[in-house]
Amino acid sequence: MKREDVENLTPVQLRRLIRKGEYVGPTFGLCKGYVQCNLVIVPKNIAYDFLLFTQRNAKACPVLEVSDVGSRKLKYLAEDIDIAKDIPEYSLYEHGILKGTYNDIEELWRDDFVSFLIGCSYSFEEDLIDAGIPMRHHEEDCVVPMYNTNIACEPAGIFHGNIVVSMRPIPYKKIPLAFSITNGMYRVHGGPIQIGNPGLIGINNLKDTVFGGGAVTIKDNEVPVFWECGVTSQAALLSSKPELVITHTAGYMLIADKKNAELK
Amino acid sequence: MKREDVENLTPVQLRRLIRKGEYVGPTFGLCKGYVQCNLVIVPKNIAYDFLLFTQRNAKACPVLEVSDVGSRKLKYLAEDIDIAKDIPEYSLYEHGILKGTYNDIEELWRDDFVSFLIGCSYSFEEDLIDAGIPMRHHEEDCVVPMYNTNIACEPAGIFHGNIVVSMRPIPYKKIPLAFSITNGMYRVHGGPIQIGNPGLIGINNLKDTVFGGGAVTIKDNEVPVFWECGVTSQAALLSSKPELVITHTAGYMLIADKKNAELK
Repeated sequence: MKREDVENLTPVQLRRLIRKGEYVGPTFGLCKGYVQCNLVIVPKNIAYDFLLFTQRNAKACPVLEVSDVGSRKLKYLAEDIDIAKDIPEYSLYEHGILKGTYNDIEELWRDDFVSFLIGCSYSFEEDLIDAGIPMRHHEEDCVVPMYNTNIACEPAGIFHGNIVVSMRPIPYKKIPLAFSITNGMYRVHGGPIQIGNPGLIGINNLKDTVFGGGAVTIKDNEVPVFWECGVTSQAALLSSKPELVITHTAGYMLIADKKNAELK
Repeated sequence: MKREDVENLTPVQLRRLIRKGEYVGPTFGLCKGYVQCNLVIVPKNIAYDFLLFTQRNAKACPVLEVSDVGSRKLKYLAEDIDIAKDIPEYSLYEHGILKGTYNDIEELWRDDFVSFLIGCSYSFEEDLIDAGIPMRHHEEDCVVPMYNTNIACEPAGIFHGNIVVSMRPIPYKKIPLAFSITNGMYRVHGGPIQIGNPGLIGINNLKDTVFGGGAVTIKDNEVPVFWECGVTSQAALLSSKPELVITHTAGYMLIADKKNAELK
């Protein structure tokens, strides 16, 4: 099925199509108003370290739910969900190296898997748009610009890495509004970590995006504003090279039954 | 040393006296402006379950810091701290039963201990007082009223229990202000869970306080307002009866170097 066929479905309707392999595309812009989450699946023997990493770096890695060990169900974010089938594309990493992508991981599932659902800045973009704040990466039809910073995460067990940020150019008069809106959504990164001086956090060239983010236009009256990004958890997973991790593929996220408004 | 001798000390000065056994009293009202925390120490084999319990019940059990395994140091809340010596009184529980209290647990320390520091509503009371909102339990010189509720915590591994709440009678005209102030401090319980109708959360008699809380006067123009309470984690520890847990003794808390204003 194509994107335009599924645009107006509810989360549960869309997850059913994904479960049957009938929709395998990216989720951006689908199920408007509903929470989309990053997925990280790790074996139980490193789940404590990862949970502690998210606790110590909660603004970058806001955990919305952790499954029970071995369970493919959730309780808070969605009913009627199969974590092994309801995400359109999964990426499997061994020792930090991508080994393959899958539309279904039932065959790979293990009884010791723990799933982490991590909030995403998509959740606050809707409110920013409603407030008349432009989202340049939407206008230019690319993935939000993301950058590595020189800010070290607080390490936890085997996990370490630097914070990854997303950037949106904001008209300078609207910065207080953008700050206020996102600050009120602390469960999806909260307010900005840096406004206007990227060099201070180790970003010397705004063209040097990472994780597939686009390099967007910044207009004369605009200032680059940076928020911590959930991709920080994936960066830590890659640099810490655990034996096995499965994540969603960037852009192919879990769509929850919760609305973004419920994260305020 | 007596309370009046230590009232104006900084956190690090007071912790040094506690470390040497020269101050062994309660911490209420000391080091004004600084964060006081609940302490829970568990062996590593149940630390994942406990960390997950706090993640799933984050409003009641807001974790401010988790130590590294076996470490008696902290990184975020305080420098120059010895977790085994810098709390005036510790309580040791085996299978949910209090086995003893100690002023120093160096002799009991194990390499597999993990310490959880959990936020406390003391941190928002200062702002409420500054805003002219009366704290009846201060006026009546007793511990804040606490109650068991009929609201089940989200269980995690071996841990389960019901939410415990604290109550403050608030003049009805000041309720929006009290809501707004506490809602802005989500790292120490955030806004109220119930306003005005205790029966809805299973509290049928405001005299039935628990955990040593007082039953305070409610004046005619006041409404009882309930916040989730960090004691929820202790209630879960008692009802889940793990082999060994050490906590601070109620009222004898860890005093951090961070200021309450930093938790906003």
